[in-house]
Amino acid sequence: MEWTREQRYRPYDQHSALELLKLQRQADNSPEQLKYHIRPTSGLLNDPNGFSYFNKEWHVFYQSFPFGATHGLKSWMHMTSPDLVHWRSHGLALAPDTEYDSHGAYSGSARVVNGRLCLMYTGNHRDDDWVRTPYQLGAWMDHNYQVTKFDQPLFVNPSTITEHFRDPQLLEHDGRFYAIIGSQDAENKRGHIDLWESDQLEHGWHELGHVDLGQDDLGYMVECPNLITVDGRQVMIFCPQGLDPQVAPYDNIYPDMYLTAESFDYDHPAMINPDAHMQNLDDGFDVYATQAMNTADGKAYAISWVGLPDLEYPTDNQNWANCMSQVKELHYHDGQLYQNPVPAIRDLRQTDQAINIDGQVETINPEAGQQFELNLTLPADQTGTLHVAAKEDLSKSVAINFDTQAGKLTIDRGHTDQPTNLDYGTSRTVDLPAHQALNLDIFVDHSLIEVFINDGAKVMTLRYFNNQANQLLAFDHPVQATGTWWPLSDM
Amino acid sequence: MEWTREQRYRPYDQHSALELLKLQRQADNSPEQLKYHIRPTSGLLNDPNGFSYFNKEWHVFYQSFPFGATHGLKSWMHMTSPDLVHWRSHGLALAPDTEYDSHGAYSGSARVVNGRLCLMYTGNHRDDDWVRTPYQLGAWMDHNYQVTKFDQPLFVNPSTITEHFRDPQLLEHDGRFYAIIGSQDAENKRGHIDLWESDQLEHGWHELGHVDLGQDDLGYMVECPNLITVDGRQVMIFCPQGLDPQVAPYDNIYPDMYLTAESFDYDHPAMINPDAHMQNLDDGFDVYATQAMNTADGKAYAISWVGLPDLEYPTDNQNWANCMSQVKELHYHDGQLYQNPVPAIRDLRQTDQAINIDGQVETINPEAGQQFELNLTLPADQTGTLHVAAKEDLSKSVAINFDTQAGKLTIDRGHTDQPTNLDYGTSRTVDLPAHQALNLDIFVDHSLIEVFINDGAKVMTLRYFNNQANQLLAFDHPVQATGTWWPLSDM
Repeated sequence: MEWTREQRYRPYDQHSALELLKLQRQADNSPEQLKYHIRPTSGLLNDPNGFSYFNKEWHVFYQSFPFGATHGLKSWMHMTSPDLVHWRSHGLALAPDTEYDSHGAYSGSARVVNGRLCLMYTGNHRDDDWVRTPYQLGAWMDHNYQVTKFDQPLFVNPSTITEHFRDPQLLEHDGRFYAIIGSQDAENKRGHIDLWESDQLEHGWHELGHVDLGQDDLGYMVECPNLITVDGRQVMIFCPQGLDPQVAPYDNIYPDMYLTAESFDYDHPAMINPDAHMQNLDDGFDVYATQAMNTADGKAYAISWVGLPDLEYPTDNQNWANCMSQVKELHYHDGQLYQNPVPAIRDLRQTDQAINIDGQVETINPEAGQQFELNLTLPADQTGTLHVAAKEDLSKSVAINFDTQAGKLTIDRGHTDQPTNLDYGTSRTVDLPAHQALNLDIFVDHSLIEVFINDGAKVMTLRYFNNQANQLLAFDHPVQATGTWWPLSDM
Repeated sequence: MEWTREQRYRPYDQHSALELLKLQRQADNSPEQLKYHIRPTSGLLNDPNGFSYFNKEWHVFYQSFPFGATHGLKSWMHMTSPDLVHWRSHGLALAPDTEYDSHGAYSGSARVVNGRLCLMYTGNHRDDDWVRTPYQLGAWMDHNYQVTKFDQPLFVNPSTITEHFRDPQLLEHDGRFYAIIGSQDAENKRGHIDLWESDQLEHGWHELGHVDLGQDDLGYMVECPNLITVDGRQVMIFCPQGLDPQVAPYDNIYPDMYLTAESFDYDHPAMINPDAHMQNLDDGFDVYATQAMNTADGKAYAISWVGLPDLEYPTDNQNWANCMSQVKELHYHDGQLYQNPVPAIRDLRQTDQAINIDGQVETINPEAGQQFELNLTLPADQTGTLHVAAKEDLSKSVAINFDTQAGKLTIDRGHTDQPTNLDYGTSRTVDLPAHQALNLDIFVDHSLIEVFINDGAKVMTLRYFNNQANQLLAFDHPVQATGTWWPLSDM
């Protein structure tokens, strides 16, 4: 359906409860619905927000437009988990109900401050001429999940930015509060990350300046910046829209990149001794707006929106769209990030099936279905294709093409029932060490595949849309492979 | 809050989506909220409906008024499960949106017929003078959860019943369809169960007459009748409102009873060689409207509304009310029903703590919390009190008083933070064999306790409302006891 601006921005109290109940049931009943990933209760989900640990549970919020598969009037929906795997819904946490977030409670972060969770986010206000003013806003959430917004924006916008000024990450360093904010420069219309400082949190903010990433080009606008520490390394994760692919190659409409550095200078905002080049956080089709966080004991976790701005997906016709990735534990060594599932994901595993194929057969499981984990090791110097969610004759599947001789892995989602976003290609390829064994930890959840490659050295995430009756998991020809297949329970 | 009739019967499309989102969050965030039992997404839950196995999953629906803790305009909400323990929501399945169910899609049953699930339920219509006409209605649900209501009621009401004519259970016997329906006689205003028959299901229904239960008194109205087979025995479960407690003693405002018989005569509606007396299905405070079903392989399961008509509960102030019991597997031997948890409930168990107390200590666990299972064996000839969800000084708790000498078990919920429905007493007692060991399988879920006694010979179910910080699980004095305690995960 085509949405008018008026339809997209209708206040939540002007939609009917019956409409919402029907949308919720439609999302519940979708054959493509995720069963062990966070998905919208109804309508559209985008960025993860406020990923944090507070009051003995994990919290994550998501950007939501509950009334359809379009980027309409946004709010924060709230989920909690005891283990980063089993999430339960706590519903609408931040509604667009003040002057400052009248046109959307947009993305932001959360941080525990003095026993409460401080939410810091961007509110959008539009005037009668539809001119947008972004405000950086705050709210407290207490132990009873009660949210109280600050009365006023945290600070007055500088004149040096355009309307693209968003997604604050609240940080603490040496007893002071900081925020990094995605921005677009008013003068040259180029993207940068802005650093702000306050010693009071609710007041007293002032700008410290652009963060020097040692990069000339950050595209025309940066959003969703996150600064975290991973095994002692400073890591900036961010989305530089309009980045020149010559700077760092990417295949998706917008990239989700990371850059690491030895340290971060809060006084003269800069990544110190950074990597020469930024890198893709995910080599699949659909990861964006990743939000990362550090725990008190120094661990680092990330969760991603699986979906991209300005694109359409087949479930749009069912009035819901997008999902979250599973939570990924981050490590840094050998000059790069490693991303892996968290331990609790193993709690979803049901009876295992050992795989020990010695060039005899090609089928792993004729009825593997579309809700499972497959951990597979392929020896060096083999080529072939693993078909996931495949039709019996292999005419439809997600095809994972491996070549452990040359060192290449390609995922092709072009031969599914509803090929998606063809303008950006149907395959993604990563380079791997040649002549080496390859380990794949593959998670399938009805319309989502996450492939963790060689202990998380690479991750490839994608939505796919194949008939749920396509149950076959098989190679295209007999190969050598060992591993385990587990059906996974719902979260 | 006081509800006007107009507020209670406002159409769902005249409530706002924002109101519903707020109610859903309020229910999500309640400290008393159930974590491994079915509970309302928002508002009020009452009778289980349409309990069935269809398309490789279990289904149960519940009576819902989504807009507050009152018996307003009712609909069916839908849940499914792979194992009778892990349930997920499928939202609004039957809305009150036709002439025949304009004032509520009330209770009913479900049965697989020719590859679809047939829902049979009572629709209420009220005219301008608020005079109620109950209609017995049908609907199909297909493999994609699409529900299509029949155009017309299944039959014209007989003149022999009042407006109390409800809760059809659809049965099949010898290739014909039958329905038992709870009724009130127009002439003498007494309750009975009516039997109807059709060979076409969608049409051709005619009345066979009152079911002879061998009982003179079924109160002034019967609702929620269920006829099932349990280990070869015919069992009628039903709610005879206004039953004379001399006929069968009960302590609650309305009873949920069962009566068994050798066989059931469909031609001349009667329980053949029935028990002399009906018995309470549950000896606790809050079980009502139990719905039972048989599987194709002859097993029998039941699920109950935990809540009672015409009563108030403390979470009414939080705009939500009531929950379902866990599913109970039914058996029959030694002249009575036995009810026990289904095997999959064990999947919720986390690390176990063995209990082996030999008269030395009274505390089982100082931080047991309010989400656990406790399986406990108490030797013969002991008396004492087990305090559940107790404050450190034992001044607040649910007290389970046992006397394995005389053979008595009493549950007292009078010393909780919010004692509930005091008009009906604060304790319930069951008689047990004297001088014998006692086994208790106790399930606690924040505001619900289910106690299965001696392998399900008795069940005592209750809501309780104690501060969630009351974490102690202890005896009042050192006793002898063996068993196991498990924290349980969310479902």
